[in-house]
Amino acid sequence: MWWDERLSGEIHTNEASTSSPAGGKGKAGKPDKKAERAAQRGKSAAAMTQADPSDPLKDQYGDTELVASQANSHRVWSQIEACSPSKEGEKLLLRGRVHTVRGKGKSCFLVLRQRTSTLQLVMFADDKVVSKGMVKYASLLPRESVIDVEGTVFVPKDPVQGCSQSETELHVISIRCISRAEALPFEVVDASRSEQQLKAADTQLVTVAVDTRLENRCIDLRTPANQAIFTLQSKVCQLFREALTAEGFTEIHSPKLIAGASEGGAAVFKLDYMGQPACLAQSPQFYKQMALAADMRRVFELGPVFRAENSNTHRHLCEFTGLDFEMEINEHYSEVLDVLDHLFVYMFNGLRAACAKQLAVINEQYPFEPLEYLPQTLRLPFEEGIKMLQEDGLDVDPLGDLNTEAERRLGALVKAKHHTDFFILYRYPLAIRPFYTMPDPTDARWSNSFDVFIRGEEIISGAQRVHDATLLTERAKVHEIPVDSIHGYLDSFKYGMPPHGGAGVGLERVVMLFCGLDNIRKTSLFPRDPRRLSP
Amino acid sequence: MWWDERLSGEIHTNEASTSSPAGGKGKAGKPDKKAERAAQRGKSAAAMTQADPSDPLKDQYGDTELVASQANSHRVWSQIEACSPSKEGEKLLLRGRVHTVRGKGKSCFLVLRQRTSTLQLVMFADDKVVSKGMVKYASLLPRESVIDVEGTVFVPKDPVQGCSQSETELHVISIRCISRAEALPFEVVDASRSEQQLKAADTQLVTVAVDTRLENRCIDLRTPANQAIFTLQSKVCQLFREALTAEGFTEIHSPKLIAGASEGGAAVFKLDYMGQPACLAQSPQFYKQMALAADMRRVFELGPVFRAENSNTHRHLCEFTGLDFEMEINEHYSEVLDVLDHLFVYMFNGLRAACAKQLAVINEQYPFEPLEYLPQTLRLPFEEGIKMLQEDGLDVDPLGDLNTEAERRLGALVKAKHHTDFFILYRYPLAIRPFYTMPDPTDARWSNSFDVFIRGEEIISGAQRVHDATLLTERAKVHEIPVDSIHGYLDSFKYGMPPHGGAGVGLERVVMLFCGLDNIRKTSLFPRDPRRLSP
Repeated sequence: MWWDERLSGEIHTNEASTSSPAGGKGKAGKPDKKAERAAQRGKSAAAMTQADPSDPLKDQYGDTELVASQANSHRVWSQIEACSPSKEGEKLLLRGRVHTVRGKGKSCFLVLRQRTSTLQLVMFADDKVVSKGMVKYASLLPRESVIDVEGTVFVPKDPVQGCSQSETELHVISIRCISRAEALPFEVVDASRSEQQLKAADTQLVTVAVDTRLENRCIDLRTPANQAIFTLQSKVCQLFREALTAEGFTEIHSPKLIAGASEGGAAVFKLDYMGQPACLAQSPQFYKQMALAADMRRVFELGPVFRAENSNTHRHLCEFTGLDFEMEINEHYSEVLDVLDHLFVYMFNGLRAACAKQLAVINEQYPFEPLEYLPQTLRLPFEEGIKMLQEDGLDVDPLGDLNTEAERRLGALVKAKHHTDFFILYRYPLAIRPFYTMPDPTDARWSNSFDVFIRGEEIISGAQRVHDATLLTERAKVHEIPVDSIHGYLDSFKYGMPPHGGAGVGLERVVMLFCGLDNIRKTSLFPRDPRRLSP
Repeated sequence: MWWDERLSGEIHTNEASTSSPAGGKGKAGKPDKKAERAAQRGKSAAAMTQADPSDPLKDQYGDTELVASQANSHRVWSQIEACSPSKEGEKLLLRGRVHTVRGKGKSCFLVLRQRTSTLQLVMFADDKVVSKGMVKYASLLPRESVIDVEGTVFVPKDPVQGCSQSETELHVISIRCISRAEALPFEVVDASRSEQQLKAADTQLVTVAVDTRLENRCIDLRTPANQAIFTLQSKVCQLFREALTAEGFTEIHSPKLIAGASEGGAAVFKLDYMGQPACLAQSPQFYKQMALAADMRRVFELGPVFRAENSNTHRHLCEFTGLDFEMEINEHYSEVLDVLDHLFVYMFNGLRAACAKQLAVINEQYPFEPLEYLPQTLRLPFEEGIKMLQEDGLDVDPLGDLNTEAERRLGALVKAKHHTDFFILYRYPLAIRPFYTMPDPTDARWSNSFDVFIRGEEIISGAQRVHDATLLTERAKVHEIPVDSIHGYLDSFKYGMPPHGGAGVGLERVVMLFCGLDNIRKTSLFPRDPRRLSP
């Protein structure tokens, strides 16, 4: 049987390390030997796009013409997951990428990739099903090219190493390239390695610098961890909306182009709007409140938020996705906290249930501890947080804001005492909150506000808002905001305004901190920071 | 029984017309007698914010202090819908707006409003439950003020005229104002009238100009029709995502701040991004394709879209909400049409089922014929559409675009022949489509593209896209797009790109045309047109 013959040749393993150059530890993205080799491969591959016309099996391989809706054959393309042992002997057609390819003499082993799934493709020239030309054609296919492959499902004696589909492989009958990849700036397998693998002393692996990844984000995003991160991100949005819709919230879409200077401050992108000065909304804050002035009772919005801050940190972006909600309250802003608490516990439970596979995939490249959280979220007064920090020996201003270090420390103290990575800190000093925050009715040094923390990092900010037009105008003046610049907002409070509160969350931060990732650029599809505006 | 006593006084009717000035047909928004009267009412109301201290019932009325989370009483506030006849004799607490108020001597009739629901509140001074002071206080409450009212559910002999809750009314025990309205620029009841009512020869009603409405959008949005429109809009988004999520699509959030000039053309908002020239995305087109280059297979996005077009029409906005999707195809862009067809039929069915009440409310102010659509959407070749128009006597260029008139005419012809307001027109001339549109493989004058129409207006545009980097660059050059300005996009096609297609829809147009509305400003929460940037 020809299957066994291959064993007499070199054993194929699909471990990622086989793709790295034999040379020393390189840095992808710089012109080095690796890139030269890749370029070379690109060239030689370009030379073999069609079958040898004299090959009796010439119809079984070669590049297809540009797929431009010539045919509508209703053929069925399968997913890798469908190639189960129960399909043994069946012919299947699949489309995917050339993840790795390794030709040697009369044999060729490819790994086909579809998102986070991989399947081994086997070719061995027998001149009946597979010709030598076919093996050569396949062996020269550039990695990351998109191919159509037809083959027979086969169950090997031993599991296939390094493929997600380990119980089966596909014995190729025909192989056609749909879209050829040029020489890659870096390899997906190199970009997929964990810190642990890279640090291991006995390996000499290529690392891919963050800037190289972001510069070539479409390739970087193909790694299993990134595929999982953005599937998870999509799920966060779905769960957020599900929970709020079930509680009677209406989705709104507020304008991002606004007159004047948004909420004030310098961190605003300015532009010309048909001859009028305009800016990009720093949050949907004003508009979600105006939606309540318009009787919408409970609203939420998912949308872009723009901050022209020159903050080059692991947690700031100039454009991110805001998850915002705003709701009428009857009496107390604890009603907002009730909604928030339920919302996030629902989201965390939902992610654990629906994204177990994605979390495992992310964990492989970026190991993290699962988020610890309570069925009912801990609510800690700000003053008590200050006391915990002071008792721990940190010098903190009881009426000032917490800096990053203090937040981290508090997160650790809360985790030790209450066994949760997720908690609410409420009743912040008034002076450090936005002008529209409702002062505490018993002591004007404080306010009806809160922040929420995950793993010691602030993730949500919220409050009861001032709903009285006169007080709101006063508060804006205290904060030295030119009242004229926000008159549209202030006016909306004059015609009867229900008491209300709400909160805003950054989607990218939720995903980053839920997964314990170290940089917000990892959770933004095409990140925008002070230095990066493309791709 | 005191209920009957009121009948000896003036009969209260809650018809909207009772709120209009007795004088001639006015125009709200201009300083006229009506506004003066309103201002006067505001003043006198301000004079009665607290109960008479000598009134034994003084604790039952008067303005509350600012609701600032003083208490957390866990009292239960009810919705108007809960005031059913089965609750007769029960005490309920409600918060809502003073929709209308009419005091006369010892009695006061208010209508309380919560979104689209209204309930009659009845007060009659008996010095046991209701004092004269209490009646006076209530009578002077400005319309649109937010109040808390406690009362006993009562089932009157005859249905209450003009209230959505017609079977019951509430006999007031206590009434407190939470937030007073200042003099209104126009009345919600005036803004709620249908064209039919306004045109009827025997009425002298106040009309509210569109600009006055938009200038005071938070009041305008309180009309029943507007409450319904934005509930429906929220549902459209939910159905769109539901249908696509069920078909394996992932939600993405692509950047709105981009380097260079988006898709080219002049209609772009430019800005400075930390010293780099940037612009606002005219669509998520490039990025949803790049997400496919990044292996995401099927993606959708809901987000703002920016067009700096100086188009002052009923169907153009400078900022709108785009509903976009993009998907890999195996062979033919009919696969995109299959998804689109199913998506929209799902949405239309869903709207009819879930928003029957909202559709009825919209119909009251803006009467429209229900949308006619087929279980499987009609797909008409562009050439056939041209032929239908030519046979109908219209002079149209077979290789040109359809103008608004031609589109309307075609819509009418299709409706007459196929009994549908919703159809797909496909295989448009290549020259009039964006550069990234895949040419027809059999005849380069045509393209693998389509538009979709509702009620004779274009609502969706889509196509198979060019997935070959070389051809894409050529096509960009043909369209005179500076290739350097879009290199990030073009580069993403170089590393293996699956064949794909997709479409984009404007949320506001979907809602406008589904409901047969005449202006897109009616379906944008805070519209942005060439002249309007606030509120």
